[in-house]
Amino acid sequence: MTGKVVLSVSMSLDGFIAGPKDDLVRLHDWIFSGRADRSGGKSDRTGGSSRSSAGDPKDAEVIDEMFRTTGAVIMGRRTYDIGEPFWGSNPPFRVPCYVLTHRGQEILIRGETTFTFVTEGIESALKQARAAARHKNVSLIGADTAQQFMKAGLLDEIQISLVPVLLREGIRLFENMGTKQVELERERVVESPGVTHLTFRVVK
Amino acid sequence: MTGKVVLSVSMSLDGFIAGPKDDLVRLHDWIFSGRADRSGGKSDRTGGSSRSSAGDPKDAEVIDEMFRTTGAVIMGRRTYDIGEPFWGSNPPFRVPCYVLTHRGQEILIRGETTFTFVTEGIESALKQARAAARHKNVSLIGADTAQQFMKAGLLDEIQISLVPVLLREGIRLFENMGTKQVELERERVVESPGVTHLTFRVVK
Repeated sequence: MTGKVVLSVSMSLDGFIAGPKDDLVRLHDWIFSGRADRSGGKSDRTGGSSRSSAGDPKDAEVIDEMFRTTGAVIMGRRTYDIGEPFWGSNPPFRVPCYVLTHRGQEILIRGETTFTFVTEGIESALKQARAAARHKNVSLIGADTAQQFMKAGLLDEIQISLVPVLLREGIRLFENMGTKQVELERERVVESPGVTHLTFRVVK
Repeated sequence: MTGKVVLSVSMSLDGFIAGPKDDLVRLHDWIFSGRADRSGGKSDRTGGSSRSSAGDPKDAEVIDEMFRTTGAVIMGRRTYDIGEPFWGSNPPFRVPCYVLTHRGQEILIRGETTFTFVTEGIESALKQARAAARHKNVSLIGADTAQQFMKAGLLDEIQISLVPVLLREGIRLFENMGTKQVELERERVVESPGVTHLTFRVVK
């Protein structure tokens, strides 16, 4: 059995997955609310060097399941460049990560995470990620990466953590994905105090 | 007790409340699925001359509640012009309706529905609608009207029937609303087979 290609992302009701200047604070509040340490240090809010543990048990279960079922990660170079300074010596992924880039470089090993830089495009990255993930899922990170996979018909599942806020501006998830109408099937709804987790299967 | 100013609308996961050319068919499928008569005649799909009765009991309850709690309606001239040919001799609203327009005209009575044409803008329309609605809610119809009310800080509640489809193009609900970030509070989630009904209170 092959795993799925999954996008898990926090999105405002008006469709943004990051605010202006890549600001993630409001959208990721639910991940940190209720934690003992709410100092809100920058490294905490971008994943820190340890895995997230949300304050609400329902949120924690959604996050734990995501980590449990993910066998490899694909992200864009920009996401990597923005995140890298905050991930520390043991980034939270702890699985093989594939970074889509135009500039090749050596594999990087950071604690339990490896970063492989892929210059041959998404199909090559997916092939490598699938092999590494074995039966587990391949997770996509970042709007641009998600859009490329969606456009190519390679995305199997969309997990939206719908945040009750209108951000008004920022980076929209659902654009640059082509114009073909795509049917989805709602698979699951989890209501936590802070957000609504909605899982959709892409109907192919 | 004054009623609330409420927007109830079907929206695709990618944020559209109408497809290209004002097409509502895919977004309103859930209202008609399971009905005995699925002939899909044009007048049916735009409300027809009788109230909608959705096939699924949960959908039916959401729609019934919306009609039950609505005491007046405010819509834009464009919505009126598009809808009018399909509403027949007894439009489905059966409450006083206020049409925002630049061209004044006489009050129109159609069955149990009255259409009052308001040229003095949204605050005047709201005042009249509130008086007519008494303790019940004032419902907004149409993206443009919703956007004007939201921008003016006059919207109390957003009821989204989230349709599992990516339309890719059409009329977006959440734009032209200003740039101020707005917090919402999720009040209710109703899962029906076809859609996810999400109710949010606008935090002021």
